Amino acid sequence: MSDDECVFCAIVRGDAESSVVHDDAEVLAFMDLQPVTPGHLLVVPKTHAVGLEDLDVEDGQKVWAVGHRLSRVLRRSGLRCDGINLFLADGRAASQEVFHVHLHVFPRFAGDTFRISADWRERERSELDETAAVLRKTLAALTAGAPARPQQTS
Amino acid sequence: MSDDECVFCAIVRGDAESSVVHDDAEVLAFMDLQPVTPGHLLVVPKTHAVGLEDLDVEDGQKVWAVGHRLSRVLRRSGLRCDGINLFLADGRAASQEVFHVHLHVFPRFAGDTFRISADWRERERSELDETAAVLRKTLAALTAGAPARPQQTS
Ligand SMILES: [Zn+2]
Ligand SMILES: [Zn+2]
Repeated sequence: MSDDECVFCAIVRGDAESSVVHDDAEVLAFMDLQPVTPGHLLVVPKTHAVGLEDLDVEDGQKVWAVGHRLSRVLRRSGLRCDGINLFLADGRAASQEVFHVHLHVFPRFAGDTFRISADWRERERSELDETAAVLRKTLAALTAGAPARPQQTS
Repeated sequence: MSDDECVFCAIVRGDAESSVVHDDAEVLAFMDLQPVTPGHLLVVPKTHAVGLEDLDVEDGQKVWAVGHRLSRVLRRSGLRCDGINLFLADGRAASQEVFHVHLHVFPRFAGDTFRISADWRERERSELDETAAVLRKTLAALTAGAPARPQQTS
């Protein structure tokens, strides 16, 4: 349930400092120590899970529902909030830094400092169809009975 | 249920082209036309909702669960995938461009072009505690009976 080395498990146990906004049997939400904008929240399952691979599906849905509710709270709080981003980083290659799965929920407004960038070229339909076919096949195999571990791609 | 002007509603109805990966009674997932990386998926509720304000809580949880499952599919697909990001933009100030709520799910790997940036200074505990107190108060008010509309901050 709890991982001795994990800072978010320590917060869940009450052994590390945090500024809590929501606390129920399965989910805790608290302020990010390094907020993108004031109001930046982290929502975590109380049961330790590193990421999306080992996160229980229902625990994930509970985390989502709290994040959804807190997005409505941010919009009504009086903090600057003209929009909301939800963000989750799963794995070091995706910029995960604390290895206890967490959903970021943060307010956005004109002039804030958050930016995303990528190479967003439009792709050919044939290429997208080909990728979709690969994913449908993998989804069908996962539904039929998943391989125990994901493939390594590097 | 469906919005005549909305491109994602047109995709849901089958009136616009898409490369579908998952299709059930409530949720559709298809390839993003401008992927951050190959495999970039959008997960949408079939019932039109602009964003987190008008999205039904249970529909949101269904969208999340499909996104969670598809993250596992991406890791097993053979596509380059050493990590996953989930991203949702709610409102123009948060970089929302299609006004039918959608969850981005995309693979990450070393050398991809996706970057986030922000001013991530660590804040004082007193400042975080103060913000948390504001949010707890708003959450309690929302739970007791929400104001019909969010506050305007700009
Ligand atoms: Zn933990
Ligand atoms: Zn729509």
